[in-house]
Amino acid sequence: MGSIERIKGVAKRVIAEKKNKNDVVVVVSAMSGETNRLLDLAFQAGGTADNLETDMIISSGEQVSSGLLSLVLKSEGYDSVPLLGHQVRITTDEVHGKARIARIDGENINKELSRGKIAVIAGFQGINRDGFITTLGRGGSDTTAVAIAAAIKADRCDIYTDVDGVYTADPSLVPDARRLDSVYFDEMIEMSSLGAKVLQIRSVEFAMKYRVNLFVKSTFVEGPGTQIKFLGEKIDMEELEVSSVACDKDEAKISIRGVPDKPGIAAKIFSKISEANIVVDMIIQNISVHGFTDLTFTVSKKDLKKSLAITSKIAGELKAKEVISDDKIAKISVIGVGMRNHYGTASTMFKALSKENINIMMISTSEIKISCVIDARYAEHATRVLHDTFGLGKAKRPK
Amino acid sequence: MGSIERIKGVAKRVIAEKKNKNDVVVVVSAMSGETNRLLDLAFQAGGTADNLETDMIISSGEQVSSGLLSLVLKSEGYDSVPLLGHQVRITTDEVHGKARIARIDGENINKELSRGKIAVIAGFQGINRDGFITTLGRGGSDTTAVAIAAAIKADRCDIYTDVDGVYTADPSLVPDARRLDSVYFDEMIEMSSLGAKVLQIRSVEFAMKYRVNLFVKSTFVEGPGTQIKFLGEKIDMEELEVSSVACDKDEAKISIRGVPDKPGIAAKIFSKISEANIVVDMIIQNISVHGFTDLTFTVSKKDLKKSLAITSKIAGELKAKEVISDDKIAKISVIGVGMRNHYGTASTMFKALSKENINIMMISTSEIKISCVIDARYAEHATRVLHDTFGLGKAKRPK
Repeated sequence: MGSIERIKGVAKRVIAEKKNKNDVVVVVSAMSGETNRLLDLAFQAGGTADNLETDMIISSGEQVSSGLLSLVLKSEGYDSVPLLGHQVRITTDEVHGKARIARIDGENINKELSRGKIAVIAGFQGINRDGFITTLGRGGSDTTAVAIAAAIKADRCDIYTDVDGVYTADPSLVPDARRLDSVYFDEMIEMSSLGAKVLQIRSVEFAMKYRVNLFVKSTFVEGPGTQIKFLGEKIDMEELEVSSVACDKDEAKISIRGVPDKPGIAAKIFSKISEANIVVDMIIQNISVHGFTDLTFTVSKKDLKKSLAITSKIAGELKAKEVISDDKIAKISVIGVGMRNHYGTASTMFKALSKENINIMMISTSEIKISCVIDARYAEHATRVLHDTFGLGKAKRPK
Repeated sequence: MGSIERIKGVAKRVIAEKKNKNDVVVVVSAMSGETNRLLDLAFQAGGTADNLETDMIISSGEQVSSGLLSLVLKSEGYDSVPLLGHQVRITTDEVHGKARIARIDGENINKELSRGKIAVIAGFQGINRDGFITTLGRGGSDTTAVAIAAAIKADRCDIYTDVDGVYTADPSLVPDARRLDSVYFDEMIEMSSLGAKVLQIRSVEFAMKYRVNLFVKSTFVEGPGTQIKFLGEKIDMEELEVSSVACDKDEAKISIRGVPDKPGIAAKIFSKISEANIVVDMIIQNISVHGFTDLTFTVSKKDLKKSLAITSKIAGELKAKEVISDDKIAKISVIGVGMRNHYGTASTMFKALSKENINIMMISTSEIKISCVIDARYAEHATRVLHDTFGLGKAKRPK
């Protein structure tokens, strides 16, 4: 939600749905820039992202949006009611700053809908069992929307974003990137964790778990958007080998070189890092040479400093030769459920990169995705090359 | 509460009380300018001052303040907890924009205090019985503070304002105005309704009713402030005849001239005005001459336009000669419980004004105050003259 003008735009969409004889529940996010402004105030006062107080402060952004949208709907002649997390009884765990929803009571919402009202719910917030406001982390309003859709068994849950759907690649990097009419939940989860910023991964997981009929649409332009579909038992043989290419420049890598190779080294390092609440993404351990080994892993750039401090300390204890790090890397991934039917997707990918003289530093794979870490300088070029290699500018998913 | 710096200043005061071995409950208002900013947003979206949505929007200001002050206290090493209206269970009636407190449950506050915490409560807000946020009107945080003090039977309730206490007159008008060490509740209520903007009248009435030990102090400078005292049965013969002079330029007067004098005219006019939720302050009906009478009354300037429309309509029905209005008036009042012992306070006042050639247009009196409506041009001069006449620059209240 941006300015009042933007809220009026949102109201138009809501009214169009209402005119189509749908009951409508709207979950709102804060106005543009508001969460950052409030977060900054909290930080100035000595707060951190996981404070009870910080949650109380930043959740006010959605509270304001919810009141404003309800006012605009009313002044357009549509009866509506703004509702906060504690009114909808969105109960969460105790983790401030990234709480997880435990339960939603759809009763209050259904009551308002049965009175013909549009329910306008403040996203991103819940309450814990002591009655304090919690927030769900960045993109938390998406999660609220999906969770409410599940709780009231909604026919459909439309997530409005900055883009008009899910693309075969980031259109700002790849000029012929194409909107997909549909992607599978399995792909969407991979995409969300691989740098595609369309939907927060938790909202996708939630929707998948509770079988919510999910769409991604644009706040700015009308259109069909992208449907997130459930994958059946059998994959169509005509299915696209790869449906999208993702590029993530938010990671950095750390290498410990010349570690005396004894059992339990990796466990020692990664248990210390995980104790610091840092998530390690990719890991490579080289084959031991003359009793020494190298260990390389990636973490989020924001955790690099802290991870380096931990790693250096352990490296000292282990008498490793050196610890080096590199934050000028990019993780390029290809994703597609069709990979399960096609053999050699990985080799096609590696060949394409090699042909362009792009060196692959690390590789990780799952059943439906292959990721390669490369030099950040080639990130955009590699994305375009892979998009082209797998014919994503043209190929259409079978119906 | 102004900026973060200002919040840090508030924290210092709170910590000083805590160091004096007091349990402390702080009620916070919104940061400076915040309520107006939020109100403006609500109005842009089509809201009015009495909307459910407007209350949800503007109450977020105190929510943010409460989180911020609690953070600052914690970073200074003092355990604290921010609490919202619904957590303290401040239940109100259904009147959005100026709700009245029905009940406060002190239990949650006492629980936090017994854990050694400083309770930081968002002022100005409550919840109605349907769980929606209500607000208490301008100055509502004072009312929250007093109501909470009553609910938890606090030893003392200090209200921090822009000024360092209650003065014998507005110091910006009267250079030798003096801070009073104490005023009586009865006087404070008169002063609040006569243009002295120190405390919201409802908070004073509430404190009087529930016998709260009330002080007015300054946010900016340390000092003893002014204590609001309970008046005993008997008034000290040494008591000040007048303890303060107030000047109110927020009223306008309306006159209906040449009304055929029949019973029920005043009732007809004032019932229509009161139906429009307009408060009439002073009323004068002239003695009937040849079967015609004049009726003059004052209303708040902001209600002038609406009042004129209603009055003109009725004047037409009553076949009155004309309706005229004047918004360049001032109401000058002298207040003091000592008037009850002194005879001739009114005549002293009238003589002083007459000596300065200031014409008195309307008069209204109570046991402890006399108000005169005069030409607005003489407002400041009259205030200074009366302050001088009753010796307020020097005289001290007996202990």
